[in-house]
Amino acid sequence: MGSTCVRIAIDAMGGDHAPGEIVAGALRARDELGVEVLLVGDPQQIEAVLPPKTNLGQVQIVPAEDAIAMDEEPLSAIRRKPKASINVAMDLVKQGQADAVISAGHSGAAMAAALLRLGRLPGIDRPAIGAVFPTMIASKQVLILDVGANVDCRPKFLEQFAVMGSVYSQYVLGVPEPKVGLLNIGEEDCKGNDAAVRAHQLLRENSQIAFVGNAEGRDVLSGQFDVIVCDGFVGNVLLKFAEAIGEVMLQIVREELPQGLHGQLGTAILKPNLRRIKQRMDHAEHGGALLLGVDGICIIGHGSSQAPSIYNAIRLAKEAVDNQVLQRIQSKYQSKSSGQLLPENSQ
Amino acid sequence: MGSTCVRIAIDAMGGDHAPGEIVAGALRARDELGVEVLLVGDPQQIEAVLPPKTNLGQVQIVPAEDAIAMDEEPLSAIRRKPKASINVAMDLVKQGQADAVISAGHSGAAMAAALLRLGRLPGIDRPAIGAVFPTMIASKQVLILDVGANVDCRPKFLEQFAVMGSVYSQYVLGVPEPKVGLLNIGEEDCKGNDAAVRAHQLLRENSQIAFVGNAEGRDVLSGQFDVIVCDGFVGNVLLKFAEAIGEVMLQIVREELPQGLHGQLGTAILKPNLRRIKQRMDHAEHGGALLLGVDGICIIGHGSSQAPSIYNAIRLAKEAVDNQVLQRIQSKYQSKSSGQLLPENSQ
Repeated sequence: MGSTCVRIAIDAMGGDHAPGEIVAGALRARDELGVEVLLVGDPQQIEAVLPPKTNLGQVQIVPAEDAIAMDEEPLSAIRRKPKASINVAMDLVKQGQADAVISAGHSGAAMAAALLRLGRLPGIDRPAIGAVFPTMIASKQVLILDVGANVDCRPKFLEQFAVMGSVYSQYVLGVPEPKVGLLNIGEEDCKGNDAAVRAHQLLRENSQIAFVGNAEGRDVLSGQFDVIVCDGFVGNVLLKFAEAIGEVMLQIVREELPQGLHGQLGTAILKPNLRRIKQRMDHAEHGGALLLGVDGICIIGHGSSQAPSIYNAIRLAKEAVDNQVLQRIQSKYQSKSSGQLLPENSQ
Repeated sequence: MGSTCVRIAIDAMGGDHAPGEIVAGALRARDELGVEVLLVGDPQQIEAVLPPKTNLGQVQIVPAEDAIAMDEEPLSAIRRKPKASINVAMDLVKQGQADAVISAGHSGAAMAAALLRLGRLPGIDRPAIGAVFPTMIASKQVLILDVGANVDCRPKFLEQFAVMGSVYSQYVLGVPEPKVGLLNIGEEDCKGNDAAVRAHQLLRENSQIAFVGNAEGRDVLSGQFDVIVCDGFVGNVLLKFAEAIGEVMLQIVREELPQGLHGQLGTAILKPNLRRIKQRMDHAEHGGALLLGVDGICIIGHGSSQAPSIYNAIRLAKEAVDNQVLQRIQSKYQSKSSGQLLPENSQ
């Protein structure tokens, strides 16, 4: 089954808990999901965190001499350190030796490496980072993009995000006809700043997506939308706010619930149920963010990722590969321009 | 004590639960806070919702023939209906017959009426809506502005928001030296879009405020900041998202907590504690949003406001009047320009 097995390149040096947690998550995914994992980084450091009885012949380590630190300026660091683990991991995808890459390191550096090494998909002006949020409806999720790649977005970028997000929602998240919304400050078509009004128009006219209208802040988690597009400034603020607010809420519950004698008794009885609540609110369950629009599958994990997040990120990457997300995004843009351009191989 | 009593004009016709809940909240505030309330609207409708044994001589109703509906275009409606309740309420402040105005009606219309009838404070280019959020630290709140008045903001508008917000935080919320943050997508000075980078610079150089740097989405509720400035697009998305996410979290708790026999027993025991949790997460407790920068104290309540929110909004308005928020904002701009301009009364 070697040739059909999905191969994932993992930046083993990226993240607050690298390489230990990264490697642990990767090995679990290899065993449980049947993927091939390529651990990219310093072989010594990687070998040091392998479980005691590991058969080294069964672990694929791809040496990388360097790594990008969290406080480095991304673009210059990526250029200055061609042998950094994230660069080496991207090259594996570029050269066809891996199908996807995952990094929980410097997200700006991962993005820069993806852009420089893999390039953009034809028809896409700007790649976007998509993050999956849980919603009010237990069985539904919502994909928000962009959550940080582009601080200023032209309306046509938002339109491209909508097309890419719809493909991802349909083929990876399994939504038959994803409902697309534009993050805005009112429901009416004319609401918002200039960019929002023009983006609304473009989305309305695009026949490749199911645009249902503006989504206000209160609608984000309602479950009414499957994909919500916004510029990377608003999206990033929202993502980080949402991550933190779960903690705030849990803290309030933790403070108030065990108050008094009744409180202590009730809390003790409810322990398993409280654990389930924490799980549903917990962001780690949702893996990483997908970088959509570059010519390769890239998952950018949270800097604080531990083994379960890496495992989930690999699961996401595998889904994206298995369901040919790149090819499907491509086909949207090829079919659009087929009247004007000859396919590359017919010249 | 007639002359020192704070007088509040209430738009009795504005809001989803008008006039019943509006009047109920206003009368409670009158009785408990010792303020004078002027109920502005259709006398018949107002009288119909007064408690059965009300002595009409003790209720001050100011007739207004018209009202603005939620779906009207604000600016044109405000111009077309000079006798609308919100216009009449603003006029009471303009003419010195009231010290503050409160409306839970069409927020765009309230803003337009305030701008047209009261005008801006000298030195302020754009008024901003400030909303108070609870934080992770039970005793601390954070004021976010703008949450919806201005979808596009020039850097100097954000600087003015910071000055006005600091005054409000200090004199109404009681924070001795309010720590000001700029909502942004990274901690470093150079992060964000062009407007954010330039605003950062202006805030850094302003000696009238205690600017501590960028606030990311995750820092909003941390309690590290007392005032956070942002443009009205991001602020509005964040406000509505925060309001909704409380509901989502409570729903998850409501679904998961009573699962199983142990769950039912534990939940029953914990009822009073759960009520306290709901209260701390509930937004209604936090009254309304202040429109800062117009020449009058204006509180804009949520459309869904019920009596407790109106009561809290009146309490906020009273605090703002008692603590001379307008005069203090004024003095910031007078002292700044005192080298160039003569005070008005010395000409």
